[in-house]
Amino acid sequence: MGDQDENPACATGKIRLYVETPLQAGAEVALTREQSHYLLNVMRVKEGGAVLLFNGRNGEWRAEIVKTGKKVCVLSLRTQTREQDYVPDLELWFAPVKRAATDAIVQKATELGAAAIRPVLTRRTIATKVREDRLRATVIEAAEQCGRLTVPDVLAPLDLAEALSRLGERKLLFCDEGGNAPPARAALTGESRGAWAVLIGPEGGFEPAERAMLQAQDRVVAVSLGPRIMRADTAAIAALSLWQSQLGDW
Amino acid sequence: MGDQDENPACATGKIRLYVETPLQAGAEVALTREQSHYLLNVMRVKEGGAVLLFNGRNGEWRAEIVKTGKKVCVLSLRTQTREQDYVPDLELWFAPVKRAATDAIVQKATELGAAAIRPVLTRRTIATKVREDRLRATVIEAAEQCGRLTVPDVLAPLDLAEALSRLGERKLLFCDEGGNAPPARAALTGESRGAWAVLIGPEGGFEPAERAMLQAQDRVVAVSLGPRIMRADTAAIAALSLWQSQLGDW
Repeated sequence: MGDQDENPACATGKIRLYVETPLQAGAEVALTREQSHYLLNVMRVKEGGAVLLFNGRNGEWRAEIVKTGKKVCVLSLRTQTREQDYVPDLELWFAPVKRAATDAIVQKATELGAAAIRPVLTRRTIATKVREDRLRATVIEAAEQCGRLTVPDVLAPLDLAEALSRLGERKLLFCDEGGNAPPARAALTGESRGAWAVLIGPEGGFEPAERAMLQAQDRVVAVSLGPRIMRADTAAIAALSLWQSQLGDW
Repeated sequence: MGDQDENPACATGKIRLYVETPLQAGAEVALTREQSHYLLNVMRVKEGGAVLLFNGRNGEWRAEIVKTGKKVCVLSLRTQTREQDYVPDLELWFAPVKRAATDAIVQKATELGAAAIRPVLTRRTIATKVREDRLRATVIEAAEQCGRLTVPDVLAPLDLAEALSRLGERKLLFCDEGGNAPPARAALTGESRGAWAVLIGPEGGFEPAERAMLQAQDRVVAVSLGPRIMRADTAAIAALSLWQSQLGDW
């Protein structure tokens, strides 16, 4: 959901909503109060109008509005428009920044196909309070608008050391501003798909002890994103794009 | 210039300012009224304090504050800290969107090393009024903060057809959402450096006639940025990142 004129879906006439109920032919789905308000009052769709639904498991379905009330909207599922697709196992680990930049990071990571998003607290992290409900609302809205069939998982915030200790078989693309890391393209050449995470530091960068801890890990691939200093949201989009282009679904 | 806590340069203790005067050993530079206010009152740097200056031609210099007044700040140049560097000849052509998204596109294009930025008006472009002074202020602020030695040129807005007619020897990376264009990585493999532009459409995409016009051009390389619909600012950052990674200075 979102502002009508901000919503790229509007231009194509396709309203998409994320629901949690199972989707199958003939099923009826009652929207939440907020979704009903959005659909009926903001987007002004009438009874008989069609929207697209997805739940992250059963693909995408065309559904028709069959019942409306003051705060109620019931849809009947018609036909499956897309089958559930494959999502690369890519997590974004990011140090929370100010609210607007955090919103941007989470929205863009969704558009770029991240499977999960984890706030990671570092020594120079400015915003240590993370509102997971807000992140969750942002990823749902972004997923609805960008045509995804899944919503990224919002993972609980962890300290950097704790997050690293739980890395397991996952590889970590560490965007290392300060060092002499090789260019991302060269570093990713020869790497295989599978479970990955991209780590973006806070505006002030990582502390030397944190960089040493990262570099000591076998499964960490340190990369450079060029000679300029990027804001955290720019770096997150750049790194996710390069990963998708080389190892993901682009 | 910018908010103190938004400025990545502050974390590293390096204030950078763009000036238009020639920079050479021993020269004195008088800052503008706005820069003087920023340096003395916002950043609270005192007489004897040091900042970094660049002008897009003479590299970067360490300068010391030698005279301050109510609305005056004079700096004396000490040593050159960096030589002028090479900037890839990459332009960003973008369809202006709402103010916040346009600001984001221009700021991020600067961080990503674009040499010039041109607003391009398409049939579905929402915001046809472009405040070039505002774009210019945004690129200067972003250049100061990201460590660049140049400020991107802000080029006059052109209609898409007019911009294409002036393409000359420049190649154009056309981010084509609607079509069956090859992935950017494959399309750029084998391409050579030289003069390029990246074209990002408006939120609603290009009209069929515009896509046909683009595809008919010899020097246009159409690419896909994956299966999801991205907002204009996300697409701009993704495309510039992929270009820099394959053909630029990353």
